[in-house]
Amino acid sequence: MNAQELLLAGRAALAAQPFSVMLGTQVVSYGDGAVELHLLITDQLKQGRGFVHGGVVAYLADNALTMAAALSMGGGVLTAEIKVNYLRPALGQTLVARAWTLNAGRTQGVSRCDVFALHDGVEKLCAAAQGTILKAPAPEGHKSTAAGEGVA
Amino acid sequence: MNAQELLLAGRAALAAQPFSVMLGTQVVSYGDGAVELHLLITDQLKQGRGFVHGGVVAYLADNALTMAAALSMGGGVLTAEIKVNYLRPALGQTLVARAWTLNAGRTQGVSRCDVFALHDGVEKLCAAAQGTILKAPAPEGHKSTAAGEGVA
Amino acid sequence: MNAQELLLAGRAALAAQPFSVMLGTQVVSYGDGAVELHLLITDQLKQGRGFVHGGVVAYLADNALTMAAALSMGGGVLTAEIKVNYLRPALGQTLVARAWTLNAGRTQGVSRCDVFALHDGVEKLCAAAQGTILKAPAPEGHKSTAAGEGVA
Amino acid sequence: MNAQELLLAGRAALAAQPFSVMLGTQVVSYGDGAVELHLLITDQLKQGRGFVHGGVVAYLADNALTMAAALSMGGGVLTAEIKVNYLRPALGQTLVARAWTLNAGRTQGVSRCDVFALHDGVEKLCAAAQGTILKAPAPEGHKSTAAGEGVA
Repeated sequence: MNAQELLLAGRAALAAQPFSVMLGTQVVSYGDGAVELHLLITDQLKQGRGFVHGGVVAYLADNALTMAAALSMGGGVLTAEIKVNYLRPALGQTLVARAWTLNAGRTQGVSRCDVFALHDGVEKLCAAAQGTILKAPAPEGHKSTAAGEGVA
Repeated sequence: MNAQELLLAGRAALAAQPFSVMLGTQVVSYGDGAVELHLLITDQLKQGRGFVHGGVVAYLADNALTMAAALSMGGGVLTAEIKVNYLRPALGQTLVARAWTLNAGRTQGVSRCDVFALHDGVEKLCAAAQGTILKAPAPEGHKSTAAGEGVA
Repeated sequence: MNAQELLLAGRAALAAQPFSVMLGTQVVSYGDGAVELHLLITDQLKQGRGFVHGGVVAYLADNALTMAAALSMGGGVLTAEIKVNYLRPALGQTLVARAWTLNAGRTQGVSRCDVFALHDGVEKLCAAAQGTILKAPAPEGHKSTAAGEGVA
Repeated sequence: MNAQELLLAGRAALAAQPFSVMLGTQVVSYGDGAVELHLLITDQLKQGRGFVHGGVVAYLADNALTMAAALSMGGGVLTAEIKVNYLRPALGQTLVARAWTLNAGRTQGVSRCDVFALHDGVEKLCAAAQGTILKAPAPEGHKSTAAGEGVA
């Protein structure tokens, strides 16, 4: 796939996730083992103190980590585990997740993700994540494994 | 606080989180350093293959881990980090998170959480999580730190 | 393998690890998806404050997590990742790691481990760990995969 | 402290750790929130298949993560938790850990670490780690908190 096709495949992957559609996550870039996701910060995404809920940050990191590894592993993956450090409260207009693949083998991929809050034009790092992604066992009669398929 | 007051405090903590209200998370038990949260599985919470999105599982684990530690630490806490292993796809009617505190000191607490999918009356373990929770620095002029306050 | 054969297989696995031999790790029990390792605390295993070095605790947890999953997965495994929370300084005569398998599938296993310091007859929990273990790809011409083989 | 004094402080910190002395860990650079540690790969550091034992990799990452954060936090720290992904077997002559601080506040610091195996002059990434480091509570009557003190 060329760059434009990859981006469309990434968007199709998210569009097939009802949860991502409900939250409104956008794929801004997708290719070369890296992905950037954006999520508009609305009041509905917050916890009790007015910051973005940690679970939303973890969701975005999970998705970005998995999509990055899926790129490098040829799609058809499952997330084995994620780890998220919360560095500071996420405040602002947009949550930005950038993930990249560290290593991708036949069975496992490992990726990292930084999550920033974009606040009045300034990005602040609010979470750092790392995750393990596994090649999904091919279901019987299943052939295609488009990049971005089966994400998260 | 007695058991009933603790439960109400836990519910008030979740009710103050717009994201938890949107998803519909319920506090089923809260006390003795342990918490049980339930979340009805709707289509909106799913990813592309029809399973509950990993981000939803991570959200529920994050909340349960933090609430468990908050109980043991006297409230007023922040989540430092979580780690979630996804063991099997979450399928069924209800997501059930049970978290308990392993250790709570003055500055940090560590808790574990198991997340089950309740499917036609049978619970299956679908995720295992562990997290670090820190005592939040007291804001100036702030006194009360009810258990369950400032969760997640 | 019966219980005694399993224990011997676990001991043989450790005996094949020069690093474990150097540190003096002992397999105390091994079977039913669970393992208990002991390590005598000597001055050589300490960091600058007189506690057991965190790296030693992580080593013991890594080994126990992997051995527990290897039991459930039929041996021939690789450790994909570990996460260790340090709960309190490890002080005393013996470090005791107890690990058990949470879930073991065809490709991945997930296990947990508690590490205790035995101090004058009293055990104190000093670390809590969780890890992901993968089935190792079979090398060509390789057949046997005894439980405990290829640990860590 | 200037660059040379920092390097010496880092070396003194490791020299005060009997476990690091036994393994032979060297501080190659230390400053600007980053640290590089080297460890000669000997047969004693291996597991059963001839690779460096995962516990040795975890030890080196733990030390590097903590030293990096200690630099940024002014010393006097404790490691709260580490997470290590093993990307490929560590084979070669030297294990090289490079850690850097992502964020350092008053109470917690978060750092990342890459561990490489240097094999015939070529570095290969064999592990990726991330950790949380906490400011140690000041013991009574204690004043100095030199960078690098109390590491790990």
